[in-house]
Amino acid sequence: MDFSNLISDKMLGVKASAIREIFKVAADPAIISFAGGVPAPETYPAQEIKEICNRILETEPTQALAYGLSEGYIPLKELVLERMRDKEGIDTDQQNDIIIVSGSQQGCDLTSKVLLNEGDGVVCEEPSFIGCLNTFRTYNAKLYGVPMNEDGMDLAILEETLKNNKNIKLIYTIPTFQNPSGITTSLAVRKGMLELAKKYNVVILEDNPYGELRFSGEKVPTIKSMDTTGHVVYLGSFSKVFSPGLRLAYLIFDKGLCEKLTVAKQATDVHTNVFSQMIAAGYLQSYDIDSSIERSRLLYKHRCNFMLSCMDKYFPKAATYTRPEGGIFIWVTLPEGTDTGALMKEAICRKVAFVPGNAFMTDVDSPSNSFRLNYSTMSDEKIETGIRILGELLAEKL
Amino acid sequence: MDFSNLISDKMLGVKASAIREIFKVAADPAIISFAGGVPAPETYPAQEIKEICNRILETEPTQALAYGLSEGYIPLKELVLERMRDKEGIDTDQQNDIIIVSGSQQGCDLTSKVLLNEGDGVVCEEPSFIGCLNTFRTYNAKLYGVPMNEDGMDLAILEETLKNNKNIKLIYTIPTFQNPSGITTSLAVRKGMLELAKKYNVVILEDNPYGELRFSGEKVPTIKSMDTTGHVVYLGSFSKVFSPGLRLAYLIFDKGLCEKLTVAKQATDVHTNVFSQMIAAGYLQSYDIDSSIERSRLLYKHRCNFMLSCMDKYFPKAATYTRPEGGIFIWVTLPEGTDTGALMKEAICRKVAFVPGNAFMTDVDSPSNSFRLNYSTMSDEKIETGIRILGELLAEKL
Repeated sequence: MDFSNLISDKMLGVKASAIREIFKVAADPAIISFAGGVPAPETYPAQEIKEICNRILETEPTQALAYGLSEGYIPLKELVLERMRDKEGIDTDQQNDIIIVSGSQQGCDLTSKVLLNEGDGVVCEEPSFIGCLNTFRTYNAKLYGVPMNEDGMDLAILEETLKNNKNIKLIYTIPTFQNPSGITTSLAVRKGMLELAKKYNVVILEDNPYGELRFSGEKVPTIKSMDTTGHVVYLGSFSKVFSPGLRLAYLIFDKGLCEKLTVAKQATDVHTNVFSQMIAAGYLQSYDIDSSIERSRLLYKHRCNFMLSCMDKYFPKAATYTRPEGGIFIWVTLPEGTDTGALMKEAICRKVAFVPGNAFMTDVDSPSNSFRLNYSTMSDEKIETGIRILGELLAEKL
Repeated sequence: MDFSNLISDKMLGVKASAIREIFKVAADPAIISFAGGVPAPETYPAQEIKEICNRILETEPTQALAYGLSEGYIPLKELVLERMRDKEGIDTDQQNDIIIVSGSQQGCDLTSKVLLNEGDGVVCEEPSFIGCLNTFRTYNAKLYGVPMNEDGMDLAILEETLKNNKNIKLIYTIPTFQNPSGITTSLAVRKGMLELAKKYNVVILEDNPYGELRFSGEKVPTIKSMDTTGHVVYLGSFSKVFSPGLRLAYLIFDKGLCEKLTVAKQATDVHTNVFSQMIAAGYLQSYDIDSSIERSRLLYKHRCNFMLSCMDKYFPKAATYTRPEGGIFIWVTLPEGTDTGALMKEAICRKVAFVPGNAFMTDVDSPSNSFRLNYSTMSDEKIETGIRILGELLAEKL
């Protein structure tokens, strides 16, 4: 059947994620893949989850297997709010409400559904997370990329963008250990973004999946913790600190958005998997997630530092790169004019994979001289071998 | 904060589900609620799921807790396709593909995302499932209700509707044990719907969550089993035959829709909960789901027949109702002019709840002289007491 006259306009322009295509190539075990973006499997608390599953299915099977509330499993909502108050300084008493969602991507999808008409504008960091850029594209939103400086979005360009485009409703940001750049937005820039959001009456979607994975430097407050007016929708996730396969994340937002976000959740998938929500609640209640996160931090600290030391050793001087204080990504920038898309094809011939920078741009068709490296799942040996091969390739090309 | 200038047009008109509001009232344990629509909790295979969870977390914990494929867990896809070939006669070899989704509602959401521009038309049965009607509303689709006869949609009105409204892209139908009416669409009407879909080049979304719950009469082939041209998207679910809390359903569709549905799934929530998919696959592989469904059928047969016998005994003659051959709903129609919304308020004062018919209409604001009764979770004693009270109320009012 020819569906061409039936596909919606908003889906016509959205392509399968370039990253997913690279993943298929990188799935070849002969390839050393720095293209991924997943947590280290050894950080999943499988044994603890087994104990929790047994307890749930012995004592509360009906609740775990029956329909649940669209807003989420109440004990998990309360545990998350308590944790976010303690760890992130988010006001969880007066102004804000919470919905448990099926992963951060869904938090982005629901926020888009509630706010965006077709043609409305979304400001994003340039580069930014391809998954959420694609979500905005499925709403036929217009993306406005604001270049990243070392301390986050360029505020002057952000203000100019907001001033000149009255269709903008949303600023999408990953302020801490950004995907793909690894950059952490400074306190001053966070404050500036919040002021601009208020001035131009737009919502900030603060996506913070990596925030708890800091392994050096000083913690910077979340934008949501400084939000007294309700302009920030905060998106937290269990994917990088517990398990991505269980699809658990949470939106924390001004109560004024609660009804519409709840209806959007109802109409989208009724509610998040109850069993998984009970597993996460059981883990927060009876186990020590902070110790578990501390172990992840030490693991990623080692892998990041080791990868950086290999890059210092093997990469030519013309390649510059970020030195993240947490998270799972390093961003490499080559001299202007280099096309990292073409470079990737050669790297794959040499059995090393990374993601070229254009995948993270508002215009994916323009070549990029940057690329993303991930270190979270790799052994020292593979890191050294892969970075050495990449270094040789870069030395030949630059 | 005042969000009124920021909410999207498509969400402005969508209200919290009336059913969910009634559920809140009906949650009072003093109320006998026929308002629900959930499977009997005693049908959830909790012990078997516990065994499967232990096996998965001992032997394949990393796969269960890590990111998965947007299309779904491959063994579950294969098991479902095999089952759909055997049970429903769906061609799973050549023409069709499958995606595992987070419940039927998400199947409806993704189909809408891929097909519908704002203002596009969706034909639905009048009455129909409120949840999916709300999904279409969140895409600013225009709903065209086609009245239900005893054998399904009125084909003459369906054709007139398709002929006069070129914006229509989708026919939404629950042909077997429909929610809310309990009606099963006849083979002749199914064939007629398929012909009309081909003639006017629209897609049929065949939602079949109750199809396996037949307890009397002859099985009618699914529309998808007669589809040789790719016009039917089939939506099957684990919610009524396994567990609703695990949020598992599946879309089976012509391969021509695969890329866009996969991208829509990626942009919506990346993938369905992997652990739950492995639990369902483990159940289909190592346990006897057909025996389990047979037990559910016998349970619902008893409860349906018992409720009907009580209605025969206690309801005034002016009340007519469907006699379903499966599923979990009975639809009651009162003389024209009766407002079952007002009636419900009086019923709740007498501690009995049901869902008034207007909730299932394309125009929820027009009074309805019908209402929906559910029998799936109720003891004989509660069914008899509740129906007696309702019968007394009806006798007073009619």
